[in-house]
Amino acid sequence: MTEIQIAQSVTPKHIKEIAAKLGIPEEKLEYYGNDKAKIPLAIIDDEKVKESNLILVTAITPTPPGEGKTTTSIGLADALNILKKKAVAVIREPSLGPVFGIKGGAAGGGWSQVIPMVDINLHFTGDFHAIEKANNLLSALIENNIQSKSRSLGIDPRTVVWKRCMDMNDRGLRNIVAALGGKAGGVPRETGFNITAASEIMAILCMASDLEDLKERCGNIYVGDTWDGKAVFAKDLNAEGAMAVLLKDAIKPNLVQTLEGNPAIIHGGPFANIAQGTNSILATKMGMTLSDFTITEAGFGSDLGAEKFMNIKCRAAGISPKTIVLVATIRALKYHGGKSLKEITQEDVEALKKGLPNLEGHIASLKSFGIPIVVSINAFKSDTEAEIQVVEDHCKKLGVPVALSYGWEKGGNGCLALAGEVIKATNSCTDEFHPTYSLDDNVQTKLEKICKTIYGGENVVLSDIAKSQLRKYEAMGYGNLPVCMAKTEKSFSDDQKRLGRPEHFDIHIREFEIATGAGFIVPIAGNMLRMPGLPATPAAEMITIDKDGTIEGLF
Amino acid sequence: MTEIQIAQSVTPKHIKEIAAKLGIPEEKLEYYGNDKAKIPLAIIDDEKVKESNLILVTAITPTPPGEGKTTTSIGLADALNILKKKAVAVIREPSLGPVFGIKGGAAGGGWSQVIPMVDINLHFTGDFHAIEKANNLLSALIENNIQSKSRSLGIDPRTVVWKRCMDMNDRGLRNIVAALGGKAGGVPRETGFNITAASEIMAILCMASDLEDLKERCGNIYVGDTWDGKAVFAKDLNAEGAMAVLLKDAIKPNLVQTLEGNPAIIHGGPFANIAQGTNSILATKMGMTLSDFTITEAGFGSDLGAEKFMNIKCRAAGISPKTIVLVATIRALKYHGGKSLKEITQEDVEALKKGLPNLEGHIASLKSFGIPIVVSINAFKSDTEAEIQVVEDHCKKLGVPVALSYGWEKGGNGCLALAGEVIKATNSCTDEFHPTYSLDDNVQTKLEKICKTIYGGENVVLSDIAKSQLRKYEAMGYGNLPVCMAKTEKSFSDDQKRLGRPEHFDIHIREFEIATGAGFIVPIAGNMLRMPGLPATPAAEMITIDKDGTIEGLF
Repeated sequence: MTEIQIAQSVTPKHIKEIAAKLGIPEEKLEYYGNDKAKIPLAIIDDEKVKESNLILVTAITPTPPGEGKTTTSIGLADALNILKKKAVAVIREPSLGPVFGIKGGAAGGGWSQVIPMVDINLHFTGDFHAIEKANNLLSALIENNIQSKSRSLGIDPRTVVWKRCMDMNDRGLRNIVAALGGKAGGVPRETGFNITAASEIMAILCMASDLEDLKERCGNIYVGDTWDGKAVFAKDLNAEGAMAVLLKDAIKPNLVQTLEGNPAIIHGGPFANIAQGTNSILATKMGMTLSDFTITEAGFGSDLGAEKFMNIKCRAAGISPKTIVLVATIRALKYHGGKSLKEITQEDVEALKKGLPNLEGHIASLKSFGIPIVVSINAFKSDTEAEIQVVEDHCKKLGVPVALSYGWEKGGNGCLALAGEVIKATNSCTDEFHPTYSLDDNVQTKLEKICKTIYGGENVVLSDIAKSQLRKYEAMGYGNLPVCMAKTEKSFSDDQKRLGRPEHFDIHIREFEIATGAGFIVPIAGNMLRMPGLPATPAAEMITIDKDGTIEGLF
Repeated sequence: MTEIQIAQSVTPKHIKEIAAKLGIPEEKLEYYGNDKAKIPLAIIDDEKVKESNLILVTAITPTPPGEGKTTTSIGLADALNILKKKAVAVIREPSLGPVFGIKGGAAGGGWSQVIPMVDINLHFTGDFHAIEKANNLLSALIENNIQSKSRSLGIDPRTVVWKRCMDMNDRGLRNIVAALGGKAGGVPRETGFNITAASEIMAILCMASDLEDLKERCGNIYVGDTWDGKAVFAKDLNAEGAMAVLLKDAIKPNLVQTLEGNPAIIHGGPFANIAQGTNSILATKMGMTLSDFTITEAGFGSDLGAEKFMNIKCRAAGISPKTIVLVATIRALKYHGGKSLKEITQEDVEALKKGLPNLEGHIASLKSFGIPIVVSINAFKSDTEAEIQVVEDHCKKLGVPVALSYGWEKGGNGCLALAGEVIKATNSCTDEFHPTYSLDDNVQTKLEKICKTIYGGENVVLSDIAKSQLRKYEAMGYGNLPVCMAKTEKSFSDDQKRLGRPEHFDIHIREFEIATGAGFIVPIAGNMLRMPGLPATPAAEMITIDKDGTIEGLF
């Protein structure tokens, strides 16, 4: 069965039944159909948040199809429910754009999925659309102010850093010249579009503590400079009120269900290579308010997702995970051991052993946070007993508990061993996490600490442009912000070809961007793109729907 | 009280109660919150459509704030309900972009509104967003094919007529150069964005007879030409299946309620000056299936909305209105009599008399359709008895029934006289409408018939470019399509300064576009823009929301 066939083989329960499991009264729900609902923010209770157990699911350095963090998160939540724990998975919303690129959704897999999966992967409850509108309203207001005779702020169009966004893999929008067509068309300037998941509005939505905070953060967005060099913010354009109105529903977490009828909260979806890579703080707190175990994930490998989850999200939210689950696959370890993507479904114990340092590197990084770790081997049909034994033995040697998980094949029942290890680890956790750097460190020091402690690298080298940008942003008073690294997800280093556990490398920062609304400094390592393109044969060409509404070719 | 205060003073009934009034079983509804729902297409019943009475509401040439077609439509539907008729208003969805430009929504006014008005004016059920995604997916596929080495259709980038769209008043996107940034960024070319309401996808959604037809129409969209001059369609890019998947929910009409708790269907919102200007055929048929009186409106003056409603929509759908309500205001007639917008709230019987030819012109145009007409004077506080008397006497002289309507001030109770006249007129209707032109006429003849019969003009003059485009489109076999005129809404002519009832004018066609998916030829008269800008002081600056969710500055 394909993902979509499995997803559609289960009839969803009415979402009010799912809400009842969490103790949410029916009248508080805002329905989107019978299987999706928004939960009002007023339900969040900081006292209950303190008593709940937060579990972070992260991964080793992934192969392009990913190693199954979402599948593991959902399977683990289902398993904990089987064990009579009150557990909820809290995950990111998929981006629509990539669905039409390479076949595959982002709502789990096999028997560990959230449903309704087609809706979740497409328009869902409209959060991405609302983010796009808020982002692009600010762009329209900037364009309009530059055009204005009577109310001009004197914005120098060459300095505008705020870009439009669209949730579509459209390389043609990456770099454009806008506002052409003569006097009525505006003042021509170079600009471009980011994909919506890389927009600062997405980052803000995921960092906001409530609607008021969201509005204030929108006002604090840095837009560009005036002709005489004064910084211009969104609030100077009186943009934040209308932006917040556009986001008034998007800020509320979404409730759906797993295939096993357990609750799942899905909210916010910033990419992890170019943004903070984790769902909204509000969704996590909502999950923690409503359950004893909140299982959440952070994108790509632990060098990206987990690092930012700890140093940006948990620090800002005042929360700390009790256990970190590190997802590994036999296939990816063979890939790190030098095998090609085509070869990794064949048994190869030697390649596997050669790939183990990648796992070791992630364990070493995660240990720096001082939180118990459990390795979860996400099982594939192609794994052999000999291979599994090698990984299990290696984890034992490193003193890290390990569980083999069959979330894809068996759902919650396939993740009971993992759930047992997670409960044990959680009970053993006595401390809050240790951040990698202090907010008082200067930016260069923050970067070096991340590079050494998390990546296992040596020095951080700034380009001349990066140096001058950093000087400017520090002079503006933003040196105490956390850093949100934009780096390839394919390597610990900034060179995507260096698989495994590279050593003796430097991290090269090409540029800095600043997200003064979200509250990050963004160092860009290497050639990171914020607007993807479609592949030679886009998945869109295979996708269709017949007159009865049956969808084919999607996932 | 402001529009928003009135709208928020009424607690909406649960939408299932509204659905029950129409006989829709609760389990067939797809909820969007408690006050909005989508209605499945399977409910449409062509036999019931034949038995229902369709009422079209149109208007004289409007002043910029509009003359109250939507207010009248809602008030009339409420009045018919008071008179124990089963009646439903079927209207267009507002566009979000203009909400942030000039203050004011598009969901009726005063006590004749549909609610929840904030939602309806912003994201609503996401239909506009879905249209935008389908439109822009096609753009991304075009860009990707131009970039492709292995699967290129040989599209000449200079010929691509398909534009991206965004529901935002953003003049900076009107004309752009896209796909810059070197080899990875695509092949640079001139292009631009239309506002979503002007997109062909919006037109298609409103013309489609079902999901299958929608998919086929998406495939038929003309994109541009190959280097050797062969036309390229969306189906050549295998785009239509994925586009239809994105539109699978947007195609379903939306159910909301009037302030008086009567059902209203809102679906599709193409602008009337640059597109067909009326809600979807499916929504109209849904309304006709579920009620005895379906009240619908078509945008701007009768020269635009009503003409296209008849010759494009009704002809395609095989339906015919039984009565046409022509909305006039004393204020607008004084405007046509030479007064400025500031002066029209002062009594001025002479100016009013000078403006009456505009009303006469619209009556003359509408009479050509052979359907009974009722004039509705949409009352304003500034109207005087003497002024009202002049208009009533003039209508009587012309043999057209007239009713004074107080929809804004009194809701349905303010429209009882109009409802009485509409019932009388509907009972007197014995024939189907006479179209202005035959589909077999050539395009030039179609245009001349519209110009003479509807606009009261003389000749239709084509620019050299328009002539060569028309030759091309006729050679491609599209000469038998209906025409969808893009013309200013401010005058019967193509010169927006010629108010009243201009005479001895020609219509100048600058260009032709072709909408082969929607099924129109689009002649563009004068300088029509498909992407508006924001005004000097955008409404967005006044809009805000406080921590309790109370919205200010919107409407």
